[in-house]
Amino acid sequence: MSAHVRKAVRELAAYTPGEQPRERDIIKLNTNENAYPPSPKIAEVFRRAPDRLRLYPDPVCLELRQVIANIHQCGVEQVFAGNGSDEVLSLCVRAFVERNGSVGYHEPSYSLYPVLAAIHELDTRPVPLKDDFSWNMPEGYSASLFFLANPNAPTSVLYPKDTVRSFCAGFAGVVLIDEAYVDFARDHCMDLALSMKNVLVARTLSKSYSLAGLRLGYVVGPEPLVAAMYKIKDSYNVSRLSQEIALAALLDRGHMERNVERIRDTRDRTAKDLRALGFEVLPSETNFLWVKPPAGRSAQQVFDDLRKRKILVRHFPGPRTGAYLRITVATDGEMRALVDALR
Amino acid sequence: MSAHVRKAVRELAAYTPGEQPRERDIIKLNTNENAYPPSPKIAEVFRRAPDRLRLYPDPVCLELRQVIANIHQCGVEQVFAGNGSDEVLSLCVRAFVERNGSVGYHEPSYSLYPVLAAIHELDTRPVPLKDDFSWNMPEGYSASLFFLANPNAPTSVLYPKDTVRSFCAGFAGVVLIDEAYVDFARDHCMDLALSMKNVLVARTLSKSYSLAGLRLGYVVGPEPLVAAMYKIKDSYNVSRLSQEIALAALLDRGHMERNVERIRDTRDRTAKDLRALGFEVLPSETNFLWVKPPAGRSAQQVFDDLRKRKILVRHFPGPRTGAYLRITVATDGEMRALVDALR
Repeated sequence: MSAHVRKAVRELAAYTPGEQPRERDIIKLNTNENAYPPSPKIAEVFRRAPDRLRLYPDPVCLELRQVIANIHQCGVEQVFAGNGSDEVLSLCVRAFVERNGSVGYHEPSYSLYPVLAAIHELDTRPVPLKDDFSWNMPEGYSASLFFLANPNAPTSVLYPKDTVRSFCAGFAGVVLIDEAYVDFARDHCMDLALSMKNVLVARTLSKSYSLAGLRLGYVVGPEPLVAAMYKIKDSYNVSRLSQEIALAALLDRGHMERNVERIRDTRDRTAKDLRALGFEVLPSETNFLWVKPPAGRSAQQVFDDLRKRKILVRHFPGPRTGAYLRITVATDGEMRALVDALR
Repeated sequence: MSAHVRKAVRELAAYTPGEQPRERDIIKLNTNENAYPPSPKIAEVFRRAPDRLRLYPDPVCLELRQVIANIHQCGVEQVFAGNGSDEVLSLCVRAFVERNGSVGYHEPSYSLYPVLAAIHELDTRPVPLKDDFSWNMPEGYSASLFFLANPNAPTSVLYPKDTVRSFCAGFAGVVLIDEAYVDFARDHCMDLALSMKNVLVARTLSKSYSLAGLRLGYVVGPEPLVAAMYKIKDSYNVSRLSQEIALAALLDRGHMERNVERIRDTRDRTAKDLRALGFEVLPSETNFLWVKPPAGRSAQQVFDDLRKRKILVRHFPGPRTGAYLRITVATDGEMRALVDALR
């Protein structure tokens, strides 16, 4: 790579998103997309003439943020809207971590976190989860920013709220609780973001709202932290259409909740089916399952076998994750096809 | 601001986008949007069912980049597509400037450039233009990255290509030629990006393609520099709709070119009218005019007078720019209203 490129970037092992296959007849259980369509209210946005696209969007998404603020019963200045929660996470590193600071996260967790730190040559302070992927935190642990995925990915596990609360209370840096999957869970930590000075909660419309293609993520938290993110974001970070479509989707939460309900039912049924086949299945609070094949079949083998049958799941090689597969919960029919294939 | 926020961010004077007024009956000549609608082909994208939004977009925009590569007769690996050229500019700083590096740009130029450097605590090496806003470059000048807006904003002036070429050839760092307005100009520098190892050219669909609301910018240049930007960008930086709409617009270049032709005609006519009223008007190669009111009327006064008559232009206070106004070229009717108001 060219000497014009920063050394840290030349040496970076970039984040790899899950495969987006070109084949149409594939059962796609690898990137935790929602199997059901987004709110039909979105169609209204499409019916309006596209001529308005010639004008810049609202740079600070006021109308959209007002709707989000209403949902979470907070002020609009406590809400940041971004181009997917990826943008939100990246901005947190740039807003809250000094050059000599550090970024913390659990292992395993969302594999983007260490990449975001590496881009900025920041120290990382990974915390290994316990063997069963439950919460772990060493005495006296510190970092400038901690990315806390809850429910965690790829493990599907929800950490108890009391545990999260005491961690945040004793932590000197900023905690970003990444609640990408929280609509599929029993509990959430939004109240921590609304009551503690160092806690932000990130949400996305990609999973529960069936809008991965839209790119809309947001953060709720203390006004000074949100204001810092606004100071350094790109001038017009959320397009006009993204703002309008997100607005329509958020105003139709009932549609999202019905989809979530269906996916949870399918999830619990599929977990039972897989356990009956000898799989170890972690208790999922997400729209995916974190499973370990029965003795004698490696995760890589199962992945390959499924791929041949045109079922795509996700395998993360590595010491902590290599024995497991992450399987998105899709429609009942698709999950039956999965279980049949595994049988 | 909270102690959790980086010092550089606390102290940052953030970039201020032009006002997006709520009034509907205003003549909006302040943010260089296109007065004419985007390609009617875009309507086809809106006619397709929104259900596809549940799936992630192509993270590397292959189809869109292929179309851009065809337009500029280069390889797809020489093209980066971003969420507006804002994202492109921000990524350049993160990809090409080490912590002890520096960012260069002319003064006056796009006021975002120094902000991007300040966010990352980088040294800036501004180069003052000559009094008439023509090219200037000190002997032995160096920087890690130079943002070169050509045509320049807010001055509307195009630098001669030979000047730009010799600057790039003698410059050790990366030159990002920001051609946001180039479709309104007589000439462009794309061939420099396709022949020199340190030159990138950025384009946007915001101005000539009438798609400011969409957020689509791109960069063309050497493959190693483009690859570096891909390593550090957000995973899914361009939404599905942005990719589809940009594709439709770029495949209908004739529509863009006809709009550009109209705006150039109106621009030249308006420049003549303003000169007749005693204004100094720089020779514009953009879709805006950089003008100085006749003696006895300050730019601020003229700005305020126009605002009262519901005509919004842009005024940048400061020693180099405070005596001038930047006026977007809109429709003939709107420009007649402007000239009448000034008379």
